[in-house]
Amino acid sequence: MAFDQNDVPAFADIEDAADRVKGVAVETPLLRSDVLDERVGGRVFVKPECLQRTGSFKFRGAYNRISRLGEAELKRGVVAYSSGNHAQGVSAAARLMGSNATIIMPNDAPKAKVEGVHFWGGSVVFYDRATEIREEIAARIADDEGRTLVPPFENKYIIAGQGTLGRELMSQARGFGQEIDKIVCCAGGGGLIAGVGLAAKSMNSETEVWAAEPVDFDDMKLTFETGEHVVNKKLTGSICDAVITPTHGKLTWSLNKRQLSGGYAVTDEEVLDAMAFAWRHLKVVVEPGGAVALASILSGKADVKGRTACAVLSGGNVDPAMFARALERV
Amino acid sequence: MAFDQNDVPAFADIEDAADRVKGVAVETPLLRSDVLDERVGGRVFVKPECLQRTGSFKFRGAYNRISRLGEAELKRGVVAYSSGNHAQGVSAAARLMGSNATIIMPNDAPKAKVEGVHFWGGSVVFYDRATEIREEIAARIADDEGRTLVPPFENKYIIAGQGTLGRELMSQARGFGQEIDKIVCCAGGGGLIAGVGLAAKSMNSETEVWAAEPVDFDDMKLTFETGEHVVNKKLTGSICDAVITPTHGKLTWSLNKRQLSGGYAVTDEEVLDAMAFAWRHLKVVVEPGGAVALASILSGKADVKGRTACAVLSGGNVDPAMFARALERV
Repeated sequence: MAFDQNDVPAFADIEDAADRVKGVAVETPLLRSDVLDERVGGRVFVKPECLQRTGSFKFRGAYNRISRLGEAELKRGVVAYSSGNHAQGVSAAARLMGSNATIIMPNDAPKAKVEGVHFWGGSVVFYDRATEIREEIAARIADDEGRTLVPPFENKYIIAGQGTLGRELMSQARGFGQEIDKIVCCAGGGGLIAGVGLAAKSMNSETEVWAAEPVDFDDMKLTFETGEHVVNKKLTGSICDAVITPTHGKLTWSLNKRQLSGGYAVTDEEVLDAMAFAWRHLKVVVEPGGAVALASILSGKADVKGRTACAVLSGGNVDPAMFARALERV
Repeated sequence: MAFDQNDVPAFADIEDAADRVKGVAVETPLLRSDVLDERVGGRVFVKPECLQRTGSFKFRGAYNRISRLGEAELKRGVVAYSSGNHAQGVSAAARLMGSNATIIMPNDAPKAKVEGVHFWGGSVVFYDRATEIREEIAARIADDEGRTLVPPFENKYIIAGQGTLGRELMSQARGFGQEIDKIVCCAGGGGLIAGVGLAAKSMNSETEVWAAEPVDFDDMKLTFETGEHVVNKKLTGSICDAVITPTHGKLTWSLNKRQLSGGYAVTDEEVLDAMAFAWRHLKVVVEPGGAVALASILSGKADVKGRTACAVLSGGNVDPAMFARALERV
């Protein structure tokens, strides 16, 4: 996808998005745990976006985008492709704006995510991750029905919306008299970490931003380390459904390449342990893809000794059977 | 236990307690759920004290009490009896004040609660719920070791500390432009609901306060309805370990009798369903005793149609096996 400098969000776009989502999105709290701090030897805040409306951060960007559509566009509706969290965020934002959404979802999407779309009145079109290209299906529906495509990450307003999360966490930490010096954030398409990083770097240029990804889906980490755009070799094979995009975006990378300090890759077992830890000590429900940042810290891969860090828990939409696997590890 | 009017907390004591716990206790957020509101036909906020330090509201009262002890008293330490949440609250407050705690716990207390006490450096003395009287064991240790007893509910500072939760939820709702007109809160000894009710009634005399209790342990509901002090016939037999005291206190009742609008009694099955709902739609981890208020609302026993209500989720310290039982009901 080509883009010019006008497509790249600035901090002012995040501030504008924050005004727009105020009172509609949840200002999720900044949590901490005495057990966590003792275990890792640092001060670690967590930003639990599982508590966000629709159970993930995706609502922020979707609402920031959809609330800017004109009356005629809202009437024709929107279309999006998503493994499930963007799906719910788009469906909810569309409903709240008096519009409606059609969502292209993989046929192996967690049941909870499909039901979430239905709750908000969204229509679901399933596709096969291995044989079909979701972007093509979405483009066809957009053409046929005049729907506006709401992309999951390659859009200025989406990135700015997700960035409101970064602005919040920096401000909330300051409210506690603390300055976050290291953020660990999951990365799939890279929209969340691009927005969070933009907010963080704008508020404190010294704050480090690190990407957390599943092993074998660590295209951002590898791109950062090699300087070459890396595409994941696999399309399936991780429990972290929310963050296993084929590769990160070009627009998001234009921000991430200058904001990142590096990346971490975590295993499914480390992710399940982090979900169990969050259940036990933070009392929040985190889905596999939402737990990769915490997993990076708990596994010791992300060193936070003596640091004031923040782990973004990006979502909590998980099926009971998967959650039971985490509970077995408590 | 005898008490005079000086023992009864006033709203000023809650405001004083709020100053004292500020920055030490968590200001837990006020959450809501679109699914919940749609299901019950009202606007329901939840106050998730599972996100509180030590995983339950008990830290508020314990810290408010222990932080008022003199240097010599802190040095001699404190003693408390508790099924587990007060235990952890007292242990943490003692540790943070440079003191130490001995806790009398039933030998069937959830493992997570015993481990929580140990994390904070507390010593545990186990007793048998059926054959031993915990108050006597605590009194003996207090005498022998010069420790200060920190009672679970029959104390002005404990009640005022728990009341900070009520003050917060009323203020937070106003921050959202809403006035809470009905609070549903669990009741064991009655300290939490006494403090919450005192705060709520002081801030809005029209706000109703309703007690939620497990079936067969609904001494407060029955005392309210009959006008006679009711003692539960059973000492065991509910999954709601946190709220199955033999009966509520006299000091707490002096407040509750004038603040309550009534009570609800919920079954173990309704409690497990509420835990499952909180897991799925609120993304927070609630223990059985912490879920009785939400269970009252979800079961339809507490009518919140057209109301602006608040359910207090009092804690989240639960063992994985019990939580797995709730997950099976999702």
